[in-house]
Amino acid sequence: MSAERECDVVVVGAGLAGLCAARELLARGTEPLVLEGRERVGGRTLTEQLGNGAFVDHGGQWVSPGQGEIVALARELGVDLFASWDAGATVHWRSGERSIAPGLFGADEDGALADLRDTAKRLTEMAAELPEAAPWAAPRATEWDAITLHRWLSENVESMRARFGMARSLAGVFAGGPGETSLLAALAIIRSGAHEVSRLIAEGDPGPERRFVGGAQQLCERMAADLEDRVLLDDLVSRIEHGRDRVVVVGERGRVAARVAIVTLPPTIAGRIRYVPALAAARDHLTQRMPMGWVIKAHCVYDSRFWAEEGLAGKVVSDEGVVRASADNSPPQGAPGILVGFIDGERARRLATRTTSTRGATTSSLAAPTAAISPRVCGRPTARPCGSRSARSCGREPRRPPPGTANSRAPCIPVASPPAPRSTWSVRDRDPSGQPRPI
Amino acid sequence: MSAERECDVVVVGAGLAGLCAARELLARGTEPLVLEGRERVGGRTLTEQLGNGAFVDHGGQWVSPGQGEIVALARELGVDLFASWDAGATVHWRSGERSIAPGLFGADEDGALADLRDTAKRLTEMAAELPEAAPWAAPRATEWDAITLHRWLSENVESMRARFGMARSLAGVFAGGPGETSLLAALAIIRSGAHEVSRLIAEGDPGPERRFVGGAQQLCERMAADLEDRVLLDDLVSRIEHGRDRVVVVGERGRVAARVAIVTLPPTIAGRIRYVPALAAARDHLTQRMPMGWVIKAHCVYDSRFWAEEGLAGKVVSDEGVVRASADNSPPQGAPGILVGFIDGERARRLATRTTSTRGATTSSLAAPTAAISPRVCGRPTARPCGSRSARSCGREPRRPPPGTANSRAPCIPVASPPAPRSTWSVRDRDPSGQPRPI
Repeated sequence: MSAERECDVVVVGAGLAGLCAARELLARGTEPLVLEGRERVGGRTLTEQLGNGAFVDHGGQWVSPGQGEIVALARELGVDLFASWDAGATVHWRSGERSIAPGLFGADEDGALADLRDTAKRLTEMAAELPEAAPWAAPRATEWDAITLHRWLSENVESMRARFGMARSLAGVFAGGPGETSLLAALAIIRSGAHEVSRLIAEGDPGPERRFVGGAQQLCERMAADLEDRVLLDDLVSRIEHGRDRVVVVGERGRVAARVAIVTLPPTIAGRIRYVPALAAARDHLTQRMPMGWVIKAHCVYDSRFWAEEGLAGKVVSDEGVVRASADNSPPQGAPGILVGFIDGERARRLATRTTSTRGATTSSLAAPTAAISPRVCGRPTARPCGSRSARSCGREPRRPPPGTANSRAPCIPVASPPAPRSTWSVRDRDPSGQPRPI
Repeated sequence: MSAERECDVVVVGAGLAGLCAARELLARGTEPLVLEGRERVGGRTLTEQLGNGAFVDHGGQWVSPGQGEIVALARELGVDLFASWDAGATVHWRSGERSIAPGLFGADEDGALADLRDTAKRLTEMAAELPEAAPWAAPRATEWDAITLHRWLSENVESMRARFGMARSLAGVFAGGPGETSLLAALAIIRSGAHEVSRLIAEGDPGPERRFVGGAQQLCERMAADLEDRVLLDDLVSRIEHGRDRVVVVGERGRVAARVAIVTLPPTIAGRIRYVPALAAARDHLTQRMPMGWVIKAHCVYDSRFWAEEGLAGKVVSDEGVVRASADNSPPQGAPGILVGFIDGERARRLATRTTSTRGATTSSLAAPTAAISPRVCGRPTARPCGSRSARSCGREPRRPPPGTANSRAPCIPVASPPAPRSTWSVRDRDPSGQPRPI
């Protein structure tokens, strides 16, 4: 282990949060050092360049209307945004039948759409009761954190189609599916504007979802470039020791002493660091109660956006198969045509289990989403399946993924918030111990 | 870091599971080495000797009828069992009123007891559908793992008192309360015979709960003594590296090479070890989805078992206050008189939060359970509050707790199994990857 380094503030994690923190510190004259366990920056954003300006984002990618902070950051960093490909009809695959309808929720032949809009309105109203920066302080936080979103839907939404539509719509955000998500966590996402539920009740068009020209990971790459040698890769932090007036962060490349450490890892990963002295119990238990979710993005690359010629948006909403939702993920110039399929919750778990065993199994399991998206959209064969990645876990991805396999870990895994009455959200807003803790 | 040691099998954790494993290995001529992170053996058993044969168990302590394995182990090790103090009536504190009734569930003035017995019968029948060694393989495992015990009770038990009684009864086992426990996890506990629900429907008396003369931690202490220098304390494992035909376990005292490593830590703590290569995703996610529960045991020590003179069992069942359940925890000889109060779920979280801040807060929070138990039983003041410990977290307890505080971490924390459809129990029974994994 090498000698000790010093800086003002150690930042653990070179994702959006960590690099933003370091960037702001530096702007104020405080010297940061960012320690990143992986061999790359970006955290849960990860872009694969396909050449000629084409790319796929294996991690977070969409910017919703109202998310002004990240838009401002992109502008500062010189990363342009473009309107995500959205025009056209959605293919609905329900009980083995294929139909085409304008919106995500199909034709309103049985009043389900009205029910859905009503549900969206109620959820939005409930979400409005949440203080934006402190959802756990909402008057009904305890009640809402004690039940799943799924249970609330089943008790409050009459139409099965509306329940299904809302559950599917929210499942993509929560990865684990509504059975694993607390109602409070769902409301917090809606409150933050990060979910399209508000679109269902908008008076006017709130504007399109947007994507980053060149991919979402660029934000981190540019921030890291500005930070120069203040970002250390391949430097997994295993231990944080708090002394009276300084903290020592132990990574694989040695010890760094600082005044303050900022840990930006997802809760469960932050919990895997050894803290000396130990984290306060409430904080430690929080890290045990916010597991990572399960989601896999599978991309299929075609020569063109052929679905557009047929008036389709590239969106599929399905109640069977491995892929339950897809979208048009083509680059701004419209070529190649790229579809992204989402595999979440239990299906992702099963698929990840298979993909890790052998390369043969990997290949066949990736053929499944390809087949699921393509024939339903137009029956054409997949022109060129992209080397898709399975988002199968969190935190540590293998340093050198075996070439030719889809076995590497992509980062598009939100944090799940299962119900845990008053034990998760409610401990977030305070330091229960007075002892040093990561912030 | 010191040089590398070698043995046949490294066992991580010197609790009951780890020491039993090492003991069996040694008996078969395989050389084990047990690495323990704490400065003591015992895991979630921890006994404090009070002198003159008196003791309190801060961790697991009761042996239920049918738990033959641990009885056989105790016999082999020369640790005697005695019938836990149980005779006498229970004090019921409900809606501010104190009443006395023979059983844990109060007088049956409104048919609640019949409802409760019926509930116990139904749960026992459902539990009987679980294969004992593989609850996740039960025909309805998926359905039962997707909902909380709390929800099942609210939908299937009409009498609120019966619901309350069953929830209270099971809450003690699950620490987090029924809102956090999946129905499948509850049924698995009932199936294993570790919960007294079967007593409610027993034709005959199944026999008393028993305790270990001298305390439960002795089992581990005696096994460790037999293992001699094969148990290393203060040796927290941080990393396990799997090679082609050997595994290297890295602890604080150096590296140990072996053919096999057996990790006996609770899932969440096992997940905090760094595995190289990484654990299979399904296994990793399992460690994220079985957090530790919350429970605090508070002991009050009196000169005598004065409650027995009044025909009371020392049991309090309360619907308010910090302590919701108590029991007679006196040693076999009956003196001193010791009451144990259980503080679980949200109340334990709040109390643990307070006890970690200052010694003053600790003292006053420990006075609360003392006051809660004592005046309700007979109005006498506490003769001598024992230096109770707060079970406030898991895994790593501070090496040297500040003297005079109640800040150390006792180990009586079961693992909670919140609902997680098909994502927890169902991955237990297989190696999803084919890659090396801890067993």
